[in-house]
Amino acid sequence: MIVIGNEILSGRTQDKNLAWMAKELNESGIRLTEARIIPDIEQTIIETVNTCRARFTYVFTSGGIGPTHDDITTAAIAKAFGVPVERNAGALAILQRHYGQADLTPGRLKMADIPATATLIANPVSAAPGFCMQNVYVMAGVPSIMQAMFNGIKHGLQGGPKMLSRTLSAYVTEGIIAEALTAVQANNPHVEIGSYPFIRQQRLGVSLVARATDSALLDTTYSQLKHMLQGFTAEIEENDPAA
Amino acid sequence: MIVIGNEILSGRTQDKNLAWMAKELNESGIRLTEARIIPDIEQTIIETVNTCRARFTYVFTSGGIGPTHDDITTAAIAKAFGVPVERNAGALAILQRHYGQADLTPGRLKMADIPATATLIANPVSAAPGFCMQNVYVMAGVPSIMQAMFNGIKHGLQGGPKMLSRTLSAYVTEGIIAEALTAVQANNPHVEIGSYPFIRQQRLGVSLVARATDSALLDTTYSQLKHMLQGFTAEIEENDPAA
Repeated sequence: MIVIGNEILSGRTQDKNLAWMAKELNESGIRLTEARIIPDIEQTIIETVNTCRARFTYVFTSGGIGPTHDDITTAAIAKAFGVPVERNAGALAILQRHYGQADLTPGRLKMADIPATATLIANPVSAAPGFCMQNVYVMAGVPSIMQAMFNGIKHGLQGGPKMLSRTLSAYVTEGIIAEALTAVQANNPHVEIGSYPFIRQQRLGVSLVARATDSALLDTTYSQLKHMLQGFTAEIEENDPAA
Repeated sequence: MIVIGNEILSGRTQDKNLAWMAKELNESGIRLTEARIIPDIEQTIIETVNTCRARFTYVFTSGGIGPTHDDITTAAIAKAFGVPVERNAGALAILQRHYGQADLTPGRLKMADIPATATLIANPVSAAPGFCMQNVYVMAGVPSIMQAMFNGIKHGLQGGPKMLSRTLSAYVTEGIIAEALTAVQANNPHVEIGSYPFIRQQRLGVSLVARATDSALLDTTYSQLKHMLQGFTAEIEENDPAA
């Protein structure tokens, strides 16, 4: 996932797309393996897209495909693929239908300019489409629009088995359980166990998250984690016992 | 900024460190130019740190320096720099003082293992230190701890002039103002103008953010943006008129 936009890097806007996409991709059996947040600088967009599309199965971008001068993602993606940007007949028809000919300002017309050979991604919210070039899916930055775009394309993505997870939390510190936790991880090599310390009402605790695609393995690991924690404290929260 | 942790990429945890750091760095006159969120995979950490430390003035990492098996950042950073991890006398003294000898479990002792040649970053919240290797600052992932660590080091960072910003919002769409906005940007080449569409109570609007280090240039651009918007709508919000 590549989030494109100075507003995220300046701290003005808290990105919401990344966490949403992480969950959605997981539901589709696709693991989000890296995210980058980059500025609206053409060369940075080109380099980042080219690096990521060579390295990962799918690349999703959000941001920078609107009508204003700072929306440079479309042109940069075209350059990354070495193709021109051209007026797209399908996009033009969509914009004409949405705005009517009279309100189709030059700014809005810019949103009909799409890299050659791209296929369009429908935008049910505000019409102007995203697009797909090979394994790169280019979406809007406004969360409601990006989500609608992704919902339209996700069934065409090829995922593996869905990653399942179960979580336990306890008021015990990581330093106390670290060795016992390492032993549980060693016993369960096909389950990924993450340990996340927290501070809640000035008390230290830890959440243990077990993740696997096999629910039986996951349940076994969960039981072992629970048993291990019970050796240290009675204050255990089973966050999703019925998962 | 490199955020290290599977929990962010799985969607389980919404990262809070990035937006906080973006604002703090801006206050210090340092521009956050890229952020990457990467998993707890040693080779990925090594490659990402080596790429970024060669490319950027400063690199900040968060996450993965705790006592458990999934905390692999310290070892990965040492490998990125080609130095061994060794028991650090200063870190050991800090942990002994904080926990007392009796509670210094093997897991906690692991947090005294620091790459050779690193300098420590104080942790006023939970003692176990972060560390700095050349231009790479390695901090904890828990937001309160990361923030305390950064507050301890920020005065030693060399920033440029602070980036100032002023924002105007209006209930007008980007497609309508795009050309006029391009003209304002062209008139003010030393001010960066960003255009951010929003949907609020089912109405479309746009926020225009002008950013510059020179407050006089910024004020001039702001006035021109306001005048430009007034040509389209009376519904203008001056988000920070007194900035």
